[in-house]
Amino acid sequence: MTPAFTATDHVHMARALRLAEKGAYTTKPNPMVGCVIAHGDEVVGEGWHERAGEPHAEVHALRAAGERARGATAYVTLEPCAHTGRTGPCSEALIAAGVARVVAAMRDPFPQVDGAGFVKLQAAGIEVASGLMEAQARALNRGYLSRIERGRPWLRVKLATSLDGRSALASGESKWISGEASRLDVQHWRARAGAIVTGAGTVLADDPSLTVRLHDDTAFVAPLRVVLDPGLATVARGRVREGDAPTLYLHAPDAKPPRGFAAQHAAVPMHEGLIDLEAVLKLLAERGVNEIQLEAGATLAGAFLAGGWVDEVLLYVAPVLLGESARPLFDGLGIEAMKDKLRLDLVDVRRIGEDTRVLLQPRPPQ
Amino acid sequence: MTPAFTATDHVHMARALRLAEKGAYTTKPNPMVGCVIAHGDEVVGEGWHERAGEPHAEVHALRAAGERARGATAYVTLEPCAHTGRTGPCSEALIAAGVARVVAAMRDPFPQVDGAGFVKLQAAGIEVASGLMEAQARALNRGYLSRIERGRPWLRVKLATSLDGRSALASGESKWISGEASRLDVQHWRARAGAIVTGAGTVLADDPSLTVRLHDDTAFVAPLRVVLDPGLATVARGRVREGDAPTLYLHAPDAKPPRGFAAQHAAVPMHEGLIDLEAVLKLLAERGVNEIQLEAGATLAGAFLAGGWVDEVLLYVAPVLLGESARPLFDGLGIEAMKDKLRLDLVDVRRIGEDTRVLLQPRPPQ
Repeated sequence: MTPAFTATDHVHMARALRLAEKGAYTTKPNPMVGCVIAHGDEVVGEGWHERAGEPHAEVHALRAAGERARGATAYVTLEPCAHTGRTGPCSEALIAAGVARVVAAMRDPFPQVDGAGFVKLQAAGIEVASGLMEAQARALNRGYLSRIERGRPWLRVKLATSLDGRSALASGESKWISGEASRLDVQHWRARAGAIVTGAGTVLADDPSLTVRLHDDTAFVAPLRVVLDPGLATVARGRVREGDAPTLYLHAPDAKPPRGFAAQHAAVPMHEGLIDLEAVLKLLAERGVNEIQLEAGATLAGAFLAGGWVDEVLLYVAPVLLGESARPLFDGLGIEAMKDKLRLDLVDVRRIGEDTRVLLQPRPPQ
Repeated sequence: MTPAFTATDHVHMARALRLAEKGAYTTKPNPMVGCVIAHGDEVVGEGWHERAGEPHAEVHALRAAGERARGATAYVTLEPCAHTGRTGPCSEALIAAGVARVVAAMRDPFPQVDGAGFVKLQAAGIEVASGLMEAQARALNRGYLSRIERGRPWLRVKLATSLDGRSALASGESKWISGEASRLDVQHWRARAGAIVTGAGTVLADDPSLTVRLHDDTAFVAPLRVVLDPGLATVARGRVREGDAPTLYLHAPDAKPPRGFAAQHAAVPMHEGLIDLEAVLKLLAERGVNEIQLEAGATLAGAFLAGGWVDEVLLYVAPVLLGESARPLFDGLGIEAMKDKLRLDLVDVRRIGEDTRVLLQPRPPQ
């Protein structure tokens, strides 16, 4: 039976979710978590998890509440942890502070929690209810949940396209299809990601730096830059190796890094002459990547899409036409009949400067 | 010098513009006109032009105001007419009613008016001011103004496309890319148009009826259906000849209509093997078409666009992917370098059901 939640419960959980989101650029690989401690309508403490290794949301909120935590309700966007990681277990902190009730948005599927936090709280006589605004909480941590539950990161494909669906001219030229406002907007999506993935072709054609440039002092943990480069053909060059963010080259098992090659690199199996995308995703999940932002050309984007690995498409549509000889948005989809068309769900559409930003999620095949 | 308009003037003119728009589906080939008669803040009469041959906006508003028109200000979205067409001149009606002041959004460029209405009013001692919310008034009657000032209709290209900019599969299959909500929305844009233009290829491939189907009792004047069919290859068939709306075939000078052919048809010069699009536009303007809605395939849409004849692009983007072998949105643009890309201005973007509707205006070439 779903517990009955009051309007007040919803207000506090909505606030906790907003607090959690403040950690979007910094908690990785940890989940974002927010916490509100309240007596009825009155909030006595708030907190959010800011950075892996630092105190969890509950600890911040309990500190703010002090003695007033006693007898209060704690609203948390994720089940309080039961294990000692880099910080002590939050369930114990809640018990010690004397809270009377814990309302969670969802259970934490992390193997060392996964209900154990709730059990601990209940064993201490605390009333526990879970499931309030769970859909929102799942959407918030879609990257973390993907890594824990599916063993692969959430994969967002970012693309800039003309109105006529072209990502570059026949010559490969693609700078700049989208406008300045879009290019700044992209930085915020990059900052969320644990890894920004590209292909050797894009490194050679566009020489992107793939760093986060927010133009203000917003804190973020720099995403890992990943180049899929089967033959390690691009390692000698490129802005992708400059700057502070780490860079990882993934290559074919038989590729040899040049003598003195200092960057991180790892071999990945090949599949029909192409790098095995499933293996790439598994490797990155094992390295703690929750969310990938793929910024690549039509071939790699098409391969991920055709493989069913794409969770989200972030499309910037510029008000330009590039014509029928320009390069397609996705290559290799092999659609012959209308019934085979790939359906996506429209999540959000808005104007960004002169461009239109469309966020979509591919529908699972019928 | 631009006359100074008060906040009250703006309120009444904004109302008059909204009234004018009520005639969007019915006044063609006449312009839409709205009129508000007021003493200060108090509105004493309102009217709009509903249908060619019926009373103009001013006459409706004066009737509603009755004796209260004396000493009032009349707000009109277009200069009152000075000539006797199917109805008597509105400037004389305003004089007879004793209005003290006339505020117009813009001068009417129609040759038999073009300032003569203002002169008549001023000669009768009425204070006249023009130019209030002129940009809005021009946008409202962009079709009428195009026909009168440029000698060709305003041309809107309506297209349905996938996210990857494809208007049909390689096979030609295009039913249905866009969703039901979009297909209903299109009907309202058709209802505004004086003509819906298509090509022989679309008649053969899709067999569209090109009628207005609003699914309610909104009144409209059925747009002329126009098929560009150089060889008169499609005249024997098609839903485009069924229903109440008239159909006009435009063909090459050497094409012979089959014996007993009853539909309207006219010869148009050919230009490099294609029907001369400029001649098509001129012919339709001469027939009183203010606004064209082009609903055609990539070839014809691309030819109008490449010729610089497109004023507005109405794009329904469905959340589907059709792949790289599907047909392009516009054909024949011949863009080789990024500097040659066609720029458009984003006028409006909104969600229509599951689709995204984008309204754009091509920028004049630099």
